Amino acid sequence: MDKIQSLKGMIDLIGNKSDSKDFAESIFTTEEVLKNIFTNYGYSEIRTPALEDADLFKRSVGDSSDIVNKELYSFLDKNEKSITLRPEGTASVIRSVIEKKIDGNTHKFWYLGPMWRYERPQKGRYRQFNQAGVEILGYPEGVAELEIISLILSINTILNIEKSLIKINHLGNKDTKAKYCNALLEYLKPFVSQLDQLDQSRLKKNPLRILDSQNEKTKEILIDAPIIKDFLCNKSLKMLEMLEETFSKDCKIEIDFQMVRGLDYYTGIVFEAISDELGSQDSYLGGGRYDDLSEQLGGKKLPCIGMAIGIERLALLANKNSDDKTLISFIILSSNFEEKAYKIAHNLRIINPKIVIDVQLSDGSLKSKLRKASKNKAKYAMIMGEEEIKTSKIILKPLVEENSEQIVMSVDEMSSFVKDIS
Amino acid sequence: MDKIQSLKGMIDLIGNKSDSKDFAESIFTTEEVLKNIFTNYGYSEIRTPALEDADLFKRSVGDSSDIVNKELYSFLDKNEKSITLRPEGTASVIRSVIEKKIDGNTHKFWYLGPMWRYERPQKGRYRQFNQAGVEILGYPEGVAELEIISLILSINTILNIEKSLIKINHLGNKDTKAKYCNALLEYLKPFVSQLDQLDQSRLKKNPLRILDSQNEKTKEILIDAPIIKDFLCNKSLKMLEMLEETFSKDCKIEIDFQMVRGLDYYTGIVFEAISDELGSQDSYLGGGRYDDLSEQLGGKKLPCIGMAIGIERLALLANKNSDDKTLISFIILSSNFEEKAYKIAHNLRIINPKIVIDVQLSDGSLKSKLRKASKNKAKYAMIMGEEEIKTSKIILKPLVEENSEQIVMSVDEMSSFVKDIS
Repeated sequence: MDKIQSLKGMIDLIGNKSDSKDFAESIFTTEEVLKNIFTNYGYSEIRTPALEDADLFKRSVGDSSDIVNKELYSFLDKNEKSITLRPEGTASVIRSVIEKKIDGNTHKFWYLGPMWRYERPQKGRYRQFNQAGVEILGYPEGVAELEIISLILSINTILNIEKSLIKINHLGNKDTKAKYCNALLEYLKPFVSQLDQLDQSRLKKNPLRILDSQNEKTKEILIDAPIIKDFLCNKSLKMLEMLEETFSKDCKIEIDFQMVRGLDYYTGIVFEAISDELGSQDSYLGGGRYDDLSEQLGGKKLPCIGMAIGIERLALLANKNSDDKTLISFIILSSNFEEKAYKIAHNLRIINPKIVIDVQLSDGSLKSKLRKASKNKAKYAMIMGEEEIKTSKIILKPLVEENSEQIVMSVDEMSSFVKDIS
Repeated sequence: MDKIQSLKGMIDLIGNKSDSKDFAESIFTTEEVLKNIFTNYGYSEIRTPALEDADLFKRSVGDSSDIVNKELYSFLDKNEKSITLRPEGTASVIRSVIEKKIDGNTHKFWYLGPMWRYERPQKGRYRQFNQAGVEILGYPEGVAELEIISLILSINTILNIEKSLIKINHLGNKDTKAKYCNALLEYLKPFVSQLDQLDQSRLKKNPLRILDSQNEKTKEILIDAPIIKDFLCNKSLKMLEMLEETFSKDCKIEIDFQMVRGLDYYTGIVFEAISDELGSQDSYLGGGRYDDLSEQLGGKKLPCIGMAIGIERLALLANKNSDDKTLISFIILSSNFEEKAYKIAHNLRIINPKIVIDVQLSDGSLKSKLRKASKNKAKYAMIMGEEEIKTSKIILKPLVEENSEQIVMSVDEMSSFVKDIS
């Protein structure tokens, strides 16, 4: 019979605890680490649905962005309503706080989950990918900026990310952005015919995005283009300098006036963290301030800043081993179901939640079961044959240290032993 | 401007740590507890994409099921390929092990994530809902059945689910199922015109499903219908009795020959756990054996058993408080960004990962910040004004115990204090 394949650009993650370098395992570990960081910073989880009204992303991320323009998974549901698989997390968070009428309060949220974009799959980039993010709602420019860069530092430290560079820029407010766009358009007028199709369309839809162009000719033309620095007020420039100064002792951070971000809703501070180790698509997290988005979506005025983290990319950079739990392989050598053995396993799991007890289910010889236990990197085998079950004894066989003898223990002795495993 | 609403039957979950009875918080806690149980049993995580080739579910869950029949979110992608948001987890897991060519091995997997079904939203039932599950692959009928019921027991125990009843049945193998269906059809022939439309269509597509009918007339007709018990071989009946006997000391478990499950792929043992507390839709987990699914999807012969758990329903039943982390509200009374204060917070978080330090970002008086800290159920406020920052002191103010005095501490003293919080 025909095999059914997974869809292009959508991958299966299958954990493999015996290999901490395994990609899936490293994604799972990275997610756990991020959750702990967010929780320890006092953020609350917010989880919005994967599907949203298609209008949401048109009105937030923007028609001019590549995302909305050509990468959305949009379709009609059975009720002929146009719905979309979310391509990013921020718009849904704001939609949610408006709908729940909590857009008048301050919040610190984190989220984690899959996002979807129909783009050409490439290294570390998939059509379904995982993103974590934080959103700080209700705080105007100031200390929230500092907290979000602090969060990046914590992530870099705890995941041992070595070659990270944080780039920051300021897009001013709506007016500044508009003035700068006009200046850019004015400057580019004589060169329009020399631009490729993509850059010409950017010019029409969101001229700022032309600064992201990878076209060599465009880059050359842009050398003498106006820069946003000259349009920013003193306060904005001071904020950039303050951020650079505050954090430059602890990490590589620099102001980059060329850096704009792909989403229409940004105003104020924008930032990204990049690493050479990722190749040409070098950014692993990014974000910025979006003070107008809430009003744009029909809510109250709500100053916000947030960031999104690409889990697959961060996992490629992370140098963190998963918290190794001690694995005990429980081998029951009996053809019947041995209730007693199962109860012992259950009780031991409760005595020390840091251990994993894997009951080997298959028939087979002791030898083949011990081989499987070693392959899974179990530290001990716990063995019960018919005799041990009858007498309530367990054989403990260390699998890691060489030459160590197996020991026969009572159930109580085994409990104390397991309790002391750290 | 128009507000954009969330889609019907799709809910936002917003955590609220100060209220452990909060529905979202209880879903998050339930998920964490399940992950720990699966991990401590030695299961590996498997995460398949939300989107699959539409054929996958037609060929597994089955054309005759309500799910495939009318509840799928299916659509064409930009490449005109018919794709579907998964309505359940098992089919994708089997598709994945076949595709990765590991369908010749044994595996113990768990998964957790959103699923989608376009059905009428009702209490505890949403169009996007969360499901956890385990799949035990490569083990024929026997000890795997026992492990999966043990898992249910662990879940009930750890989440303090009191009024649980586990129902089990046996559907025999493909042939048994076919013979029983024929007998059922034969018996129902004279009554067809008395059945409602739904039951008539069940009769055509999967006669077994008629046993699930809620129609009173149908129920009456079925009283004298043949029962599957009379079609099962001795070995199957013995398996049912053994399961009932083994677990009846530890939980309420009963054989129910009327219980079939909604998915076409089940053979052998099927089971569900129900609770009165859930009302008429009383099942919170269910599963069974599906020994033919792998071959049906183009893979090797792979005997399997698995179960799926409805997180929203389980969360309604769970009586488990989240692991309470001590919350410290860090109040910085200075209009500048105080790097020193941020570093102190960062270091304290590392010293004791069991505490949560929430830096209050807003301007505002000490009084309003203390009020906010109390509202968030912080156990302590840590306060630094300009003076404290200058002298590297911190004021610790207990918020829970009445009449307790605030204390001024050095940073080192604060570190030891935080380290000892358990």
